[in-house]
Amino acid sequence: MSREGVTPQSEDFSAWYNEVVVQAELVDRGPVRGTMVIRPYGYRMWELLQADLDGRIKEAGHGNACFPMFIPESYFKREAEHVEGFSPELAVVTVAGGKELEEPLVVRPTSETVIGEYMAKWIDSHRDLPLLLNQWANVVRWELRPRMFLRTTEFLWQEGHTAHADEDDAMRETMWALDAYAGVARELAAMPVIEGEKTPSERFAGAVRTYSIEGMMRDGRALQAGTSHYLGTNFAKVFDIQYQDAQGELVHAHTTSWGMSTRMIGGVIMTHGDDKGLVLPPRIATYQAVIVPIGRDETAERTVAAARELADRLKKAGVRVHVDERTQLRPGFKYNDWEMRGVPIRLEIGPRDLDSGVVTLARRLGDQGKEQIPLDRVPEVLPGILEDFQAFLYTRAEQYRDEHTAEIDDWDSFRTQVAGGWARVLHCGRTECEDEIKADTAATPRVVPLEAPEETGSCFRCGQPSAYGKRVIFGRSY
Amino acid sequence: MSREGVTPQSEDFSAWYNEVVVQAELVDRGPVRGTMVIRPYGYRMWELLQADLDGRIKEAGHGNACFPMFIPESYFKREAEHVEGFSPELAVVTVAGGKELEEPLVVRPTSETVIGEYMAKWIDSHRDLPLLLNQWANVVRWELRPRMFLRTTEFLWQEGHTAHADEDDAMRETMWALDAYAGVARELAAMPVIEGEKTPSERFAGAVRTYSIEGMMRDGRALQAGTSHYLGTNFAKVFDIQYQDAQGELVHAHTTSWGMSTRMIGGVIMTHGDDKGLVLPPRIATYQAVIVPIGRDETAERTVAAARELADRLKKAGVRVHVDERTQLRPGFKYNDWEMRGVPIRLEIGPRDLDSGVVTLARRLGDQGKEQIPLDRVPEVLPGILEDFQAFLYTRAEQYRDEHTAEIDDWDSFRTQVAGGWARVLHCGRTECEDEIKADTAATPRVVPLEAPEETGSCFRCGQPSAYGKRVIFGRSY
Repeated sequence: MSREGVTPQSEDFSAWYNEVVVQAELVDRGPVRGTMVIRPYGYRMWELLQADLDGRIKEAGHGNACFPMFIPESYFKREAEHVEGFSPELAVVTVAGGKELEEPLVVRPTSETVIGEYMAKWIDSHRDLPLLLNQWANVVRWELRPRMFLRTTEFLWQEGHTAHADEDDAMRETMWALDAYAGVARELAAMPVIEGEKTPSERFAGAVRTYSIEGMMRDGRALQAGTSHYLGTNFAKVFDIQYQDAQGELVHAHTTSWGMSTRMIGGVIMTHGDDKGLVLPPRIATYQAVIVPIGRDETAERTVAAARELADRLKKAGVRVHVDERTQLRPGFKYNDWEMRGVPIRLEIGPRDLDSGVVTLARRLGDQGKEQIPLDRVPEVLPGILEDFQAFLYTRAEQYRDEHTAEIDDWDSFRTQVAGGWARVLHCGRTECEDEIKADTAATPRVVPLEAPEETGSCFRCGQPSAYGKRVIFGRSY
Repeated sequence: MSREGVTPQSEDFSAWYNEVVVQAELVDRGPVRGTMVIRPYGYRMWELLQADLDGRIKEAGHGNACFPMFIPESYFKREAEHVEGFSPELAVVTVAGGKELEEPLVVRPTSETVIGEYMAKWIDSHRDLPLLLNQWANVVRWELRPRMFLRTTEFLWQEGHTAHADEDDAMRETMWALDAYAGVARELAAMPVIEGEKTPSERFAGAVRTYSIEGMMRDGRALQAGTSHYLGTNFAKVFDIQYQDAQGELVHAHTTSWGMSTRMIGGVIMTHGDDKGLVLPPRIATYQAVIVPIGRDETAERTVAAARELADRLKKAGVRVHVDERTQLRPGFKYNDWEMRGVPIRLEIGPRDLDSGVVTLARRLGDQGKEQIPLDRVPEVLPGILEDFQAFLYTRAEQYRDEHTAEIDDWDSFRTQVAGGWARVLHCGRTECEDEIKADTAATPRVVPLEAPEETGSCFRCGQPSAYGKRVIFGRSY
């Protein structure tokens, strides 16, 4: 219950993050290195993101399914690039039911292989296409440098897996998923993400093309917050996903996969948080408003009763609200506590407020003056105040991103720029050149934005002709 | 796509079950023995059950959380009965990140141990109680005789875990969960379950008291479809879950746990299905109604258009509806197919129906006559027809259960009775006597019903004084 303040974000971003996720009761460190316990205050945010994304997925005609998490090692080894990409991160079950297993079982790090096996079984004819599957699941990737939400050994995600008759249809699906992710990020998480394609070195193991949404965190780094892959016929060939087309010919399907994970919560924290702690966008905040009744003994009886009554009316108006009834704590402590925990709106009800028939409203950010609102009108005005706060957070994050992004054409400016933000550069596209840049600055190509003006010229680093036909975003990343 | 008919239920219940779950596309066998792939047609049913139960859980003040699935082996070994009960079923990760692990990790078969560890950390004072947690998760129990939905190596469930100041409060919680399960079973699954307490031999490993809901399947066997456990201070003592009470004394908390799983889907199948296949209760049916447009070529254009339009109107009325547009299949095939897949209501639209402005409605069970309904009125009347069908299934199942349950006072009648149903008997409560009965008839004490008249006398089997103060239900079980 006792809380120390968190290290200010401006002092040590990384310490701030590690402290705030635990103190705000979003998570706790798990018993096994790199694992996390997501507590109700954090899990509710995931449920809200989930509900929205699941609605988009169903609306677009996908069916949710559940594939086993244990994948025979032999399945996993079929696609050469895929196994090479994931092998160092696998957790393996070797003993079950008291016996050594004949074939070890990989705990899924992703499910292309097992789902590929079933796509092959379920698809016969062009009439079976497209096959649009999704699952909400836990996956495991053994992490050497774990960090709550961002890189944990076990995490939660959804993984979409689809099969299509041809590249066109599969690419439409790939871009649909990317847009869905951008929609969730922008509309729920208030994250002004950039959609774009990954350069070859950053592609998913086994993909032909990988797309991602990238958000800028408040330390200037990029966070990849959702990826969508066009897998071509790579998995179809090794898993025999074939169909008879209208002419009776046997043809390989084109597949896609796409995922968004609990990492998104980390993105929300690092996009909006400040020195005091979390700042949560109302649409995914566990509590959109907290009511703090003030006073002791008989006074408390009156203010607590009024707070409960107001909470009931707010719940009916669709607001997620919590009454802080902890009698052993002072109001000032509670204010700091809920600020640290990022609740968008605080409502204080003191005895004098009650006498005047008002509540005192304080926003977590932005307009810092307290405001008095007639008690009766709160359920009517609060939804609008929350929407304004949501929009404010988006604009603030967009401004931050734009102020920390620059077109760069020379190496010295690049080094300065990527120390605290993103550089838009012309780049040759060669992996060796990317590697040199990374070794020197820790910056990597984040994404070739879908929306960017056409531009060609010489690579800012090596002078060779530029690739991609437009500028690429480089930055340090999580 | 091609389907053979299923073995009739009346001929071979077990073969019927195994065939129908796969042919109806609820599941497919997983790549590893004992695992299953839940396909969209089956997973949607789980989502509908989940949504209802999750609403009840949240409404009662529980917070959803997510604990890691890998549990250090040492945690697992702390509660002696618990580890003894689960050891033969564990799957163990011994290799991760390319290395042998120092301590093997158990893949959770249930989470009392890991959650106990965190309850100890999060609870300091009586003000922190009750602590009400729940999680939706996958768990693993290595099964020797796996069966889709009923006993699979990996399954989905929710597990509630709560800590309370005393036995009274913990028992209230235990019974709340049992009632919630009975509510879901009766109201959604149309299963007339019996709530009761398990005898000591059937208790959860580590529990003081175990309660369950039991449904009768159409082969007369019992299915345990949800359990709720009062754990006393057993886990609190080994995990140090203590709190300071109002007097400043350090006291052990009383904990509970409770779970309902994908097994429930198996219960639905075996409670309502018949020789033709599945019969799904409308409230959890993936499709509540299927529309089959009839005709070829130009005729099909008209009927398909009308079917789509009707489907849109039904969706707006909140009905889950599917239009079967498979042009390569005949209507008769489609009728059989959707009957086998258990869709409650079928709507046929032929060219003559269209000319008269009607659709032809057929129920999956009960009133077998086809009915003609004005096309315009379908969205208005269908919700009521679906509710009636739901109620019909419940009553039918209740009748079946009552017809196959009898008060029994002698051994010969018992043997006959439990071959095809349940026996209500006075029993001595001795495990040795239970074991003898089981060895001879395969019947076990399913539950001591909460609601049953007081009655004492002699054990029907051994003649010793009866236990429990009421009759116990014996039956064969899944």
